[in-house]
Amino acid sequence: MSTDLTDELAQLRLVDHHVHSTLAATPDRAAFELLITEADRPGPAGTTQFDSQLGFAIRAHCAPLLGLDAHAPADDYWAARTARPEEEVADTFLRAAGVDHWLVDTGFKGDLLLPLDRLSGGRDEQVSEILRLESLLESVAAGATAQALLTDFRQALTDAVPHIRGLKSIVAYRYGFDIDPERPSPREVQKAAARWLAELETGVPARVSDPVLLRMLLWEGADTGLPLQLHTGYGDADLELHRCDPLLLAPWIKAVEPTGAAVMLLHCYPFHRNAGFLAQVFPHVYLDVGLAVNHTGAASPGVVAESLELAPFTKILYSSDAWGPPELHYLGALLWRKGMAAALSRWVHAGEWSTADAARVATLIGRSNAERVYRLA
Amino acid sequence: MSTDLTDELAQLRLVDHHVHSTLAATPDRAAFELLITEADRPGPAGTTQFDSQLGFAIRAHCAPLLGLDAHAPADDYWAARTARPEEEVADTFLRAAGVDHWLVDTGFKGDLLLPLDRLSGGRDEQVSEILRLESLLESVAAGATAQALLTDFRQALTDAVPHIRGLKSIVAYRYGFDIDPERPSPREVQKAAARWLAELETGVPARVSDPVLLRMLLWEGADTGLPLQLHTGYGDADLELHRCDPLLLAPWIKAVEPTGAAVMLLHCYPFHRNAGFLAQVFPHVYLDVGLAVNHTGAASPGVVAESLELAPFTKILYSSDAWGPPELHYLGALLWRKGMAAALSRWVHAGEWSTADAARVATLIGRSNAERVYRLA
Amino acid sequence: MSTDLTDELAQLRLVDHHVHSTLAATPDRAAFELLITEADRPGPAGTTQFDSQLGFAIRAHCAPLLGLDAHAPADDYWAARTARPEEEVADTFLRAAGVDHWLVDTGFKGDLLLPLDRLSGGRDEQVSEILRLESLLESVAAGATAQALLTDFRQALTDAVPHIRGLKSIVAYRYGFDIDPERPSPREVQKAAARWLAELETGVPARVSDPVLLRMLLWEGADTGLPLQLHTGYGDADLELHRCDPLLLAPWIKAVEPTGAAVMLLHCYPFHRNAGFLAQVFPHVYLDVGLAVNHTGAASPGVVAESLELAPFTKILYSSDAWGPPELHYLGALLWRKGMAAALSRWVHAGEWSTADAARVATLIGRSNAERVYRLA
Repeated sequence: MSTDLTDELAQLRLVDHHVHSTLAATPDRAAFELLITEADRPGPAGTTQFDSQLGFAIRAHCAPLLGLDAHAPADDYWAARTARPEEEVADTFLRAAGVDHWLVDTGFKGDLLLPLDRLSGGRDEQVSEILRLESLLESVAAGATAQALLTDFRQALTDAVPHIRGLKSIVAYRYGFDIDPERPSPREVQKAAARWLAELETGVPARVSDPVLLRMLLWEGADTGLPLQLHTGYGDADLELHRCDPLLLAPWIKAVEPTGAAVMLLHCYPFHRNAGFLAQVFPHVYLDVGLAVNHTGAASPGVVAESLELAPFTKILYSSDAWGPPELHYLGALLWRKGMAAALSRWVHAGEWSTADAARVATLIGRSNAERVYRLA
Repeated sequence: MSTDLTDELAQLRLVDHHVHSTLAATPDRAAFELLITEADRPGPAGTTQFDSQLGFAIRAHCAPLLGLDAHAPADDYWAARTARPEEEVADTFLRAAGVDHWLVDTGFKGDLLLPLDRLSGGRDEQVSEILRLESLLESVAAGATAQALLTDFRQALTDAVPHIRGLKSIVAYRYGFDIDPERPSPREVQKAAARWLAELETGVPARVSDPVLLRMLLWEGADTGLPLQLHTGYGDADLELHRCDPLLLAPWIKAVEPTGAAVMLLHCYPFHRNAGFLAQVFPHVYLDVGLAVNHTGAASPGVVAESLELAPFTKILYSSDAWGPPELHYLGALLWRKGMAAALSRWVHAGEWSTADAARVATLIGRSNAERVYRLA
Repeated sequence: MSTDLTDELAQLRLVDHHVHSTLAATPDRAAFELLITEADRPGPAGTTQFDSQLGFAIRAHCAPLLGLDAHAPADDYWAARTARPEEEVADTFLRAAGVDHWLVDTGFKGDLLLPLDRLSGGRDEQVSEILRLESLLESVAAGATAQALLTDFRQALTDAVPHIRGLKSIVAYRYGFDIDPERPSPREVQKAAARWLAELETGVPARVSDPVLLRMLLWEGADTGLPLQLHTGYGDADLELHRCDPLLLAPWIKAVEPTGAAVMLLHCYPFHRNAGFLAQVFPHVYLDVGLAVNHTGAASPGVVAESLELAPFTKILYSSDAWGPPELHYLGALLWRKGMAAALSRWVHAGEWSTADAARVATLIGRSNAERVYRLA
């Protein structure tokens, strides 16, 4: 083993424990630009989303896989990308990601993405489902009664559990982590259900944001004992970021520990140090810095290194949080490998870590921790 | 172009989009020491403000411009500085800053500083004014009635607009960003004006801190469509720093978007990553890390690099936030150039960025973004 | 002097201004593992606390002092450690720490630790006491009346002052920094005392958490004029970390300034940048990054460098916050020396600092600031 860990990292097959599917069809340029930012509308006139760390990373690392020079102009990249069928683009980038197993959150705009059974293409990657709790509740709301909603939801969850690897909550988006930590009573749930279902009868789309119902989902999810993923920190303009600091969720984290569910804090930036604290002091808390790695691009080694401060190495996972463009599935893996290799090589060179330990920690974070927590082996 | 971007950065002519004027006269040593810290009173007995990152940066980089060795002792520096007329000191440092255009906030202790028409000395730098909204309101308060205050303020603002490049608010100092985001009604403004004007009749100095009036200023300022600068984060002991996190201002930022005004988040440290999030997801939000660069000195490359994480490169600007000693106008530019060169060279060497892109981004941040937003070209 | 400051740092004799005593007896393996994390119970099955930055640092740096290779496996380390009497282990690591003076907080689980008069072993290190305010109040509560509690406490504090070097408060643990900043009235104290003493009569252990009593302690402590240490930021699961941000304490910090007491913010991670702001703008505020340095191990140079941003160099101190295993007393010093040498050498090489200044700042932080504030000389 060399003291430069680049090769070890490059060869490591990963488990991407939080990801979405890839695009079902090639979007137009404007739509693509909005898929490489968390903004939901264009920037100022005359600007392009390619002028960002993620845009530069696409040009640096994705362009060569389409036969272009590294750092090819955005227009050349776009021409090369759109000259190929979306399936070929996806196959190129997903293959290059070096991922063995995708744990796919199916709860966001799935109609624009490949169905799960087509995600792995002809390759031998495994694909498993992570079920979004809010989506499941919204799917059983149609025609439900306030009396029956909780029962109907429990039945749907029980039916789903054999087919999924974990659950996901977006309470950070729908309310915030400053939520009452206690399990709501059946009576509270019924009253909240009545309010919500009455709203739905007016024809508004089913979108659960009532904090009582969101708390019910968190507790019902934890009761399954499956790992429960929580969107944490950075995301789009829909969230109030200061209410997505995982420290605010500590009371619920403490309360839910007896269920045995692992709490998977996703993304975490810019609160990844706070998440590291929680991962150290609570046995059932885990974290990743997915999403932030892609969006900080060349600067992501700093974020990756910060994720390795307080959290035990058995409590950190790899994810891309890619959604849509398969470039993101590839870049998440590539940038994580580079960031890990940089941090670990630095520590090996400084005499702080042995090379063997560094390779072992890379494997823990890159795949073994996910295999253990999600029982994939 | 070399892959070491030091030369490119050194030759780049800057727009300093948030700065104040320089000292009208040489202060005494004790006063000077208080101008190189955000403290408003001396440190513990036996200590000097020169024992700080900014003090060390002055000795490292300003001393040679006064004919001394780099790292000359503070006493030698002070002797050399006070042996020269203040105009000569200012000319030396302002010239060395390599700035083409100063956008000057005139709202703080202007009586101690050079008037704007003398700031550029005999040099061919341009000087433009940024008007502080609170100062303007305070200037029209004398003799105003509660009924007429809003009208008087609007007239004064309308009169000022042709002569200025942007507006500034210090709501962070006067209240905090946890302010009601809504535009106050004329009736609310009138009631708040009545309270404030009654207070002024007791002879207290005009200092607006009523949150209704501060909100009125934010909205009236945005209505002009001019860029609106907001003090954000780090400053002196007068502010409650945890209430200056720009995330707290997100509701107002969302509400004000239809006015078309650009929201310029100044300084931002230690919340610069939060500001980067806002600059990514809101098309009208921009940021800089002025002030913090000077005060973190040798450690500023880390701050500069962190400012390049989430924000699109079209949304980041250069500023010094220098006030008073012209050393600060120079060091702001010098340290920013060094921090940028360090980050960009690292990314070019790592294959993440092309050299041409690095030079282009330096130009965007160093001047082009400001030229676009403030319509300077 | 070389421009590589490693030697200067290695030879510098330190004052560890916040530390606890070492273990009175060798614990079993499970207990030891819980002493190298802030968690209070084991991690997931099959994991070990050695798989952390602190665990790796122990294997890298402590193993050689027990005759093992660097990075020896945890089991080998444990075998070598338990083959020696605890006194020998302590002597090895405390001697290697290079500390002249230990300022020891005696307020936490002292029955498991060596008494102060045995801490220095046969070596010529000095040992002084830092008295925990909450412990002192709890010690006078037994048999006290509500009317007399304040008087009894004051008498105990007055009796203690000649024998101690400073005071410590854990208000961050017992309530949070979002506490009313005002000194409580004697009447308020008496009412709170009555409530608390009535509780104690039911037989619960004496553990003060009433915010009125905690505020009384802060003010009585400050009245002594002794340096007052405050647990800040990172600690165990008992605290609500987001309520331990030192910015929340700014109102009290302002209010207490006239007492002349120095406010020593301990640990501070992940709020060390916020603490740096307070240390710059308030003459009586100091900080360290103890505890976090040990627990971030190989990543600690980043934390050390961030502690050198805004705070004047006369306001930063060294501490280990070691409790129990003497490995922690040694590693705190070793990792701080390495982190300081890395940051300072980088700045000297970049031309930002002179070597002489770097060595002087290392001495200020490593011992002189503590000698000045605690009047140790």
